[in-house]
Amino acid sequence: MTEIKEQSIETFLDELASKQATPGGGSAAAVIGAQSAALTSMVCNLTIGKPKYIEVENDMKALLQQSEALRIELTGMIKADVDVFDKLMSCYGLAKETDQKKTDRSEQIQIVLKEATLVPLECAKACAQAIKLSRVAAEKGNIGVISDAGVAAMAGYSALKSAALNVYINAGSIKDKNFATEKLTELEQIIKGADVETEEIYQIVKSKL
Amino acid sequence: MTEIKEQSIETFLDELASKQATPGGGSAAAVIGAQSAALTSMVCNLTIGKPKYIEVENDMKALLQQSEALRIELTGMIKADVDVFDKLMSCYGLAKETDQKKTDRSEQIQIVLKEATLVPLECAKACAQAIKLSRVAAEKGNIGVISDAGVAAMAGYSALKSAALNVYINAGSIKDKNFATEKLTELEQIIKGADVETEEIYQIVKSKL
Repeated sequence: MTEIKEQSIETFLDELASKQATPGGGSAAAVIGAQSAALTSMVCNLTIGKPKYIEVENDMKALLQQSEALRIELTGMIKADVDVFDKLMSCYGLAKETDQKKTDRSEQIQIVLKEATLVPLECAKACAQAIKLSRVAAEKGNIGVISDAGVAAMAGYSALKSAALNVYINAGSIKDKNFATEKLTELEQIIKGADVETEEIYQIVKSKL
Repeated sequence: MTEIKEQSIETFLDELASKQATPGGGSAAAVIGAQSAALTSMVCNLTIGKPKYIEVENDMKALLQQSEALRIELTGMIKADVDVFDKLMSCYGLAKETDQKKTDRSEQIQIVLKEATLVPLECAKACAQAIKLSRVAAEKGNIGVISDAGVAAMAGYSALKSAALNVYINAGSIKDKNFATEKLTELEQIIKGADVETEEIYQIVKSKL
């Protein structure tokens, strides 16, 4: 099967819109997060090497390394979301004719639900990082493409909040309440202040247009 | 040349990140907006035909028609953004050796700047509509995929705010102040309340998880 990242944008949108369960919001969040990282990279690539921005050259090079690593990570998460969803669905499809099979099925579901919580949690973390990187681009990047840093911030924010929804869903079905509470607390720490930070970056960008 | 929508997601992300001027934030906004519409369609497609949701069947069918029309419109805007940017760049490249040529060049730039303001303004309008449609999906859609309505709302919002940045940039360079003010006022009307509306939809979704 073709990996989603190898599909055309048009095909991806068609499949997103279709009644197939995947790709869904989790993959969309990863794609949007990857766009955020890519736009920060774009600002770096259009700042590095310009005499006018020689003073921030090293900062921009360091930022580019981080944004490119993040872009690779987020691009990988497009598939991770689909994989864990499929794994969860196949657990739900396990046999339950006997009490033993019911117990086995339930245990398997619980194991995969933890994984299905960690995948979007990692995505949320990466998106929070994408927002932080966009701030550096907004503050130091080439003013001629500064709006792209603003788009990077907005994309990172919406992807973060989108990934969070998948954490809430899966954590909600986990019986190991310590695990669930720990992951939800971690998520709240990641989300906390992201709205204010995104709006700040947006206003930095807007003030430079 | 391959149209962006025909490119793979990976190639699109590579080009977004590169030092090429296009695709940039304008195209990213259209792609994210199209993902919003696609996710609303997905919720419709997974609600229509389910006996449990027979009462909202007609609403969902009507919503699907709107979200699919919007998805086509937003997908088209990926290219529109690149086209108008290229057109603007070629105007800036026009000859300016004589006073007449300078005047001609300046007039051409002003004409295309208006177009370059209208393209993202239309995108912003479409994204505001995408947010509204996601609310219907959040309120009436299949609860099993309700999180996708939340992602649709977030994607629509970030795409709206992203498109707005391109309106600000281009409107700011337009000498016809009546035109610029009119378009900026129109944009403010579109943006007004979008943050509150998006957060409301997000909370509707979260309360149903």
